[in-house]
Amino acid sequence: MAASTKPSGGTAHGYISDKDRYLARLKRIEGQARGIHRMVDEDTYCIDILTQISALTSALENVALALLDDHLKHCVVNAAKAGGPEADEKIKEASDAIARLVKS
Amino acid sequence: MAASTKPSGGTAHGYISDKDRYLARLKRIEGQARGIHRMVDEDTYCIDILTQISALTSALENVALALLDDHLKHCVVNAAKAGGPEADEKIKEASDAIARLVKS
Amino acid sequence: MAASTKPSGGTAHGYISDKDRYLARLKRIEGQARGIHRMVDEDTYCIDILTQISALTSALENVALALLDDHLKHCVVNAAKAGGPEADEKIKEASDAIARLVKS
Amino acid sequence: MAASTKPSGGTAHGYISDKDRYLARLKRIEGQARGIHRMVDEDTYCIDILTQISALTSALENVALALLDDHLKHCVVNAAKAGGPEADEKIKEASDAIARLVKS
Repeated sequence: MAASTKPSGGTAHGYISDKDRYLARLKRIEGQARGIHRMVDEDTYCIDILTQISALTSALENVALALLDDHLKHCVVNAAKAGGPEADEKIKEASDAIARLVKS
Repeated sequence: MAASTKPSGGTAHGYISDKDRYLARLKRIEGQARGIHRMVDEDTYCIDILTQISALTSALENVALALLDDHLKHCVVNAAKAGGPEADEKIKEASDAIARLVKS
Repeated sequence: MAASTKPSGGTAHGYISDKDRYLARLKRIEGQARGIHRMVDEDTYCIDILTQISALTSALENVALALLDDHLKHCVVNAAKAGGPEADEKIKEASDAIARLVKS
Repeated sequence: MAASTKPSGGTAHGYISDKDRYLARLKRIEGQARGIHRMVDEDTYCIDILTQISALTSALENVALALLDDHLKHCVVNAAKAGGPEADEKIKEASDAIARLVKS
């Protein structure tokens, strides 16, 4: 993973307030991934595995959309207020992340 | 998960020949999910987390497409040869799984 | 567009029975595309244009899924019954089309 | 289509500067939609139609991503600078549009 521009100096990201909720959702996602591994290991019927993969993909998308919303609300709004080249950069970075989500 | 029609009597699913490769891919996917959990826990920058979620979503899609290809090659082809209502049912089941993938 | 393997000699594709319904759906899709062009021309608010683009994308996906289902039911089932290399080729072609849909 | 909050008083939307380019892209998209209608009318092979539908879906997604980028750069940044409830509303509206794109 290439490291991106870190917010200058702050420790707080947009998602920090909901951190526990995100961690719980990601714990469940890890469990779903482990469950799919087990299904293949136990020779579960393909279609049932595909159903679980679709469910996991949706769960991941929902986490991504929530993170992106938090990011727009906090980092992008703050950068827009500050103005200057950092604002443009934040928008570009957000647009690129949105494009990756839409295309993935 | 609702159990689907199991292939009558057979132990062998289409993907069984590549089982080790699928298990290895799903192990990596579990590791990616764990990595995203850790990134949130360590307050990693949102955009970097989104990049990893897109990568994980793509990895899952690729596993799903491979499973589906195996399923068409084996279960669907065999059902088509056997004919009768089971063939129709297998096609319907495959089409429904494809729709879930396209829409997820 | 690269021309693909045409079914040997037949005039009838899987979708032929529903041809009028497909044509009506695609007429509506053309109208939706024209409507989006007009919205940009009339300086409609971006978010409203995006809503219409999402609706059009969903309509296209639904047509694609219906065509694919017809294709599996007819061409792929017939090729599977006939067997031989053409069956394998049809499955590969269908899997590639599914992958393009999932990734687009 | 439900009308959304219009930017108060302005005639200029974010995309206005590139309007001609958007109109040209949407003209091509209309042509692609018409081409798909013609392909079904002429009983073209399903897989070739599916290829064209995937290409059209991608073209639409790219227009949507460009509009969204313009929207973030202009409407959202301006609303963020102005602050107040309108800023929150603009972010919510953008996040909802992103979710529709990701899920469509």
